[in-house]
Amino acid sequence: MVDYVVYGRGCFNQLDEIIAPRRKDGRPMIFLVDHFFDGKPLVNRIPVRGNDKVIFADVTYEPKTTQVDKLSKQLKDEFGNISGVIGIGGGSTMDLAKAVSLMMTNPGSSADYQGWDLVKYPGVYKAGIPTLSGTGAEVSRTTVLTGPTRKLGMNSDFTPFDQIMLDPELAANAPANQRFYTGMDCYIHCIESLQGTYLNEFSKSYGEKALELCQYVFLQKDKWDDECDDKLMMASYAGGMSIAYSQVGVAHAVSYGLSYLLGTKHGIGNCIVMNHLHEYYKEGVDEFKRMVEKNKIDIPVGICKGLSDEQFDTMIGVSMGMKPLWENALGKNWEKIMTREKLRALYEKL
Amino acid sequence: MVDYVVYGRGCFNQLDEIIAPRRKDGRPMIFLVDHFFDGKPLVNRIPVRGNDKVIFADVTYEPKTTQVDKLSKQLKDEFGNISGVIGIGGGSTMDLAKAVSLMMTNPGSSADYQGWDLVKYPGVYKAGIPTLSGTGAEVSRTTVLTGPTRKLGMNSDFTPFDQIMLDPELAANAPANQRFYTGMDCYIHCIESLQGTYLNEFSKSYGEKALELCQYVFLQKDKWDDECDDKLMMASYAGGMSIAYSQVGVAHAVSYGLSYLLGTKHGIGNCIVMNHLHEYYKEGVDEFKRMVEKNKIDIPVGICKGLSDEQFDTMIGVSMGMKPLWENALGKNWEKIMTREKLRALYEKL
Repeated sequence: MVDYVVYGRGCFNQLDEIIAPRRKDGRPMIFLVDHFFDGKPLVNRIPVRGNDKVIFADVTYEPKTTQVDKLSKQLKDEFGNISGVIGIGGGSTMDLAKAVSLMMTNPGSSADYQGWDLVKYPGVYKAGIPTLSGTGAEVSRTTVLTGPTRKLGMNSDFTPFDQIMLDPELAANAPANQRFYTGMDCYIHCIESLQGTYLNEFSKSYGEKALELCQYVFLQKDKWDDECDDKLMMASYAGGMSIAYSQVGVAHAVSYGLSYLLGTKHGIGNCIVMNHLHEYYKEGVDEFKRMVEKNKIDIPVGICKGLSDEQFDTMIGVSMGMKPLWENALGKNWEKIMTREKLRALYEKL
Repeated sequence: MVDYVVYGRGCFNQLDEIIAPRRKDGRPMIFLVDHFFDGKPLVNRIPVRGNDKVIFADVTYEPKTTQVDKLSKQLKDEFGNISGVIGIGGGSTMDLAKAVSLMMTNPGSSADYQGWDLVKYPGVYKAGIPTLSGTGAEVSRTTVLTGPTRKLGMNSDFTPFDQIMLDPELAANAPANQRFYTGMDCYIHCIESLQGTYLNEFSKSYGEKALELCQYVFLQKDKWDDECDDKLMMASYAGGMSIAYSQVGVAHAVSYGLSYLLGTKHGIGNCIVMNHLHEYYKEGVDEFKRMVEKNKIDIPVGICKGLSDEQFDTMIGVSMGMKPLWENALGKNWEKIMTREKLRALYEKL
């Protein structure tokens, strides 16, 4: 679990005070900030002291192991070591901050640690401050990275943040499309996990609450206001907590293939896939379509047009590799249900 | 936050493996077990190794600072130091385990640390394994102790457990009355906090989920089964988490006076008071009464009969001292609403 959680409008103002005891003599705090905020007023509110450094992270694409390795090498070269990493941004920035923290103390490449419980040492102090809600990366035990051979997280007890600050004010200026796609990451996760075969009451309680909050902000509310940001930030947190004893399903499994091959970002990728999953999640897909309509969102279509057989095979390979997701969604005999041909047909529809 | 949370039927079987890395050469693990389990089969499942010790805690009354001091002194005298304390029981046992852990490393008496952020050093390793659901003590940042001058917790960042194991099987044999009283601690807390003036979306989300789970097990279900234990254990956890940004109210404030003077245990004390709070929590009290009736529970009456003026004054003093609770319930001008006379009249009704 994350050690310290602060929630509240304006709590970002407590950052200076909260990280003060974590500063080590001469070692800087690194603020890793989503490049979306470059030139925006939030940057002036970051409590930069001494040799602290603000680095804008290019999250046009999702984090790569090469990007993590480069960033951590750059910090080691410049400072030897650092006091900590504070990630400020969406899920990609959260994951980047977690991975860089771990790679400040673990030898080799972050690609060596893609998997379960491979990380050897605790990282440097790390804090996460989400500015987009939905991924649950702020509370998860992983950091999803695209590596040389796969998209897979560094899952370990050392991965969760030491501190998170949940300040819904920071989400207020997110572009509506982006906010929706990221929010749907949470919604789709809830649909997949609550209907899945891997679930217990812990994850069910969190998943139901996250689902209810998503339904409230995307269907019941008639316009987006502060209350929506408050609730969606909690939905993301609860959705992230529910991951502990649950698993995602078809949408995530298929979406991973898209992002591996085409670099499609996770939130929008899930939406593109969800649009076509009526066969697996009937009620969820109907409700998802109502949300899309009500919030006037465009979901891209035709993104797999013109791909070669080899490219389809790559996506199918990546997707079929996500065995626990398929098993959660379709049961132990999932391979009989989701054949390569059926999956190819699904990809062609996207 | 608690660092590690395990939830699941039968997870108690993982205890040996989970605590193994926390064992320090030659220093025992102390299993502090609710005396209810003395002679019961659960005791044989405790993974006792080397010089480990099982101590049955007498929780006839709620934990006292003197009891904590005596226990920690006894352990220091016998072992010098210990690897950790594992509390197995209800809220009293949880609190006792947390307090003993802290007093193994902090000088003086536990009474010195009743308050906020007074604890100086982290305690020894501590794990909590609840066998009754409702208090939320398994996740709280406090340990409520009755001291020489007051009933007040050791609230600190060092207080939460390092590990909790939530195994609903352990709650299966709880006596129905006790299970109800303890469950009502959670239910009443939710009513008080959700209707209070101190609340944000974090605590609201948790509080609503806890409330819904309590309503399900105590009103919707027609007989008690495994699902009830599963859900009530999650209700307790969620209720405990909701405490972070919320506060209890009238029932707790009045009940604290009872427990200070008469030693009335927290759960049953809250029930005794809740029965008479229609003026403050109309719908909650109506629903509470339906739960009492449906579950065929006896709530004691007449417990303040024959008390002296001095005794009433003591209870009133303790209760009125809980300023944040009253302010949460009745607003900033609470002293104009809840006068000593009015509180005396309420105590006389109990």
